[in-house]
Amino acid sequence: MIYFDNSATTIPYPEVLRTYQEVASKIWGNPSSLHRLGSQAGQLLEASRQQIAALLAKQPNEIFFTSGGTEGDNWVLKGVAFEKQAYGNHVIVSDIEHPAVKESAKWLVSQGFEIDYAPVNKAGFVDLKALEQLIRPETILVSIMAVNNEIGAIQPIKAISDLLADRPTISFHVDAVQAIGKIPLEDYLTDRVDFATFSGHKFHAPRGVGFIYKKAGKRITPLLTGGGQESDLRSTTENLAAIAAMAKALRLVFDKDAANLSKIAAMKERLFNELSRYEDVILFSANQDFVPNIVTFGVKGVRGEVLVHAFEEHDIYISTTSACSSKAGKPAGTLISMGIPKSLAETAVRISLDDDNDMEQVQQFLTIFKEIYHKTSKVR
Amino acid sequence: MIYFDNSATTIPYPEVLRTYQEVASKIWGNPSSLHRLGSQAGQLLEASRQQIAALLAKQPNEIFFTSGGTEGDNWVLKGVAFEKQAYGNHVIVSDIEHPAVKESAKWLVSQGFEIDYAPVNKAGFVDLKALEQLIRPETILVSIMAVNNEIGAIQPIKAISDLLADRPTISFHVDAVQAIGKIPLEDYLTDRVDFATFSGHKFHAPRGVGFIYKKAGKRITPLLTGGGQESDLRSTTENLAAIAAMAKALRLVFDKDAANLSKIAAMKERLFNELSRYEDVILFSANQDFVPNIVTFGVKGVRGEVLVHAFEEHDIYISTTSACSSKAGKPAGTLISMGIPKSLAETAVRISLDDDNDMEQVQQFLTIFKEIYHKTSKVR
Repeated sequence: MIYFDNSATTIPYPEVLRTYQEVASKIWGNPSSLHRLGSQAGQLLEASRQQIAALLAKQPNEIFFTSGGTEGDNWVLKGVAFEKQAYGNHVIVSDIEHPAVKESAKWLVSQGFEIDYAPVNKAGFVDLKALEQLIRPETILVSIMAVNNEIGAIQPIKAISDLLADRPTISFHVDAVQAIGKIPLEDYLTDRVDFATFSGHKFHAPRGVGFIYKKAGKRITPLLTGGGQESDLRSTTENLAAIAAMAKALRLVFDKDAANLSKIAAMKERLFNELSRYEDVILFSANQDFVPNIVTFGVKGVRGEVLVHAFEEHDIYISTTSACSSKAGKPAGTLISMGIPKSLAETAVRISLDDDNDMEQVQQFLTIFKEIYHKTSKVR
Repeated sequence: MIYFDNSATTIPYPEVLRTYQEVASKIWGNPSSLHRLGSQAGQLLEASRQQIAALLAKQPNEIFFTSGGTEGDNWVLKGVAFEKQAYGNHVIVSDIEHPAVKESAKWLVSQGFEIDYAPVNKAGFVDLKALEQLIRPETILVSIMAVNNEIGAIQPIKAISDLLADRPTISFHVDAVQAIGKIPLEDYLTDRVDFATFSGHKFHAPRGVGFIYKKAGKRITPLLTGGGQESDLRSTTENLAAIAAMAKALRLVFDKDAANLSKIAAMKERLFNELSRYEDVILFSANQDFVPNIVTFGVKGVRGEVLVHAFEEHDIYISTTSACSSKAGKPAGTLISMGIPKSLAETAVRISLDDDNDMEQVQQFLTIFKEIYHKTSKVR
């Protein structure tokens, strides 16, 4: 099997699942309990928080656990909007955000908020001038993803940080789900960033766990109210086994970061160069300012779905754009935002690599692609 | 070790953790993916949903997965309120709800909703007449827990169902977190109930997973918007391993239900009878209309905290009321609502039993209690 769909979800590391098992079976106390079993669980919870904070060069009181990226994005969008509704009702998100951000922004309209969508240029990057023009005195929140999930474009978070530098009343949120472990921390977790969202299962941690970074002192209304866990900002009995496993996964990912990324980059380069030789192949990703693990491309006249299923026959797994939009059969929203015609956007497929993959798999993929390319030539 | 704090959290069943491990390591595909790994994961997801629905005698399209009881309660309270805000702004919850319900209700006030708290009588049961008097034409939601988590009182869900029978515009939500597996289904999941909340870790499933029951056709606004999972009502990549493990845990609990409960009831009876012999012991729980697994009591003049730590010295774990309020050092809110003076409410401790426990542990507990009782007589 060749799994080239690592941006949809990663395979949990075996040692990470062992940590899960160990904690779930041995340290099952409720961290809120007053007795020793509770404090033992509470200590591991705080140790996990410290480990994650240290890896991100942040403070433990800036890390809040969640059930994943979608909850994190929902919490920041809705929580900041509700928190600051007395000061303004205007929110800006980019036009290429993940649905967890975009749909949350749309929902806020029903509660009296106004949303603007910052456009992207033809290459897939947020247009800074256009973003600046959208800012109003009532703007309370700007939310821009660090790495686009459909084509891998690295958004100009540093430049947006500069743009917002002298506008301290605007909260700045970065969806960093596809960035962590793929690009340097300083490229998406700048000093100006107030909130950032992370999802465990995108970096080999278990499903159903994630965290947000909230800069110390920044205010947010809870999405989950109740027993008062997570400094009264996110109630629910803590998913300790998954949290400890996530801390371990993040350490493993950061440990092998550099070597890992150059290996992945070499695979991407090979794919990129080989695919670009085909006359009817359009590459939607590029190299400069794109993550090293994503190649999104299409074959003119062939729907992405057809390619996905053709590769599946050979036990090779890629995706049509994002997992979230694939079942709905929608073309990649990012490509539409880039001004690519719908008929071309519908051809898009995404290869997303990981260090589980190797050059031999890349070669196998290219061999099979050649076959599929020629087979589909009749229908093109 | 004697673990008598099963209402705070249960020990996950080993076979349930094996299911988790099996699924997490083998069926790790994203159910939203278009390819075979996605559909394989999607099939297990739907099989788990079917199994849970069948156990509850409901339909699979009435079960929606969550990250736990707190999310379920927040979702129903906020989601129903937002969904129906055009029709009314009045919500009734009982005065003894879990903070996940009560704090959600309080938060709704900041969004223009009006909340009334239905009082309970001296024994800890919602007062039906008082509840009826709170109902107004603008009432959109009534939320009453099935089993109180602090003293184990079974609330009159059938009678409330009758009360609401000819008021179809009012949604009826039941927090069933402490009821499932403890009392018969028909006592809390009546035909009139529109929404019910469940939490996995209260019935030996992993932490961080739960579900809600939503009667077919009933409308609710999502709390988590995004990729469109769970029929577009609860977005996020599904926590499949935990969901499959939860389905297994629920089957195991239902399988041994009857024998299990009479064993637990016998332990409670023993505790109840023995504790009631002590002059300075006050029993806050009773037998009639109380679950078989909870005994809440206090020793006059001795703070609950002191008892918890005294038992801890003997490797016996009980709690001061609920885990959620124990760290805040608040007396059991339920007892205050029952009209018990604060000084007496502060003595309360909760024993919560499970079929992991046995009569020998009960005997050990009682022996140690006798010792502690006499030791504390000096300070009483």
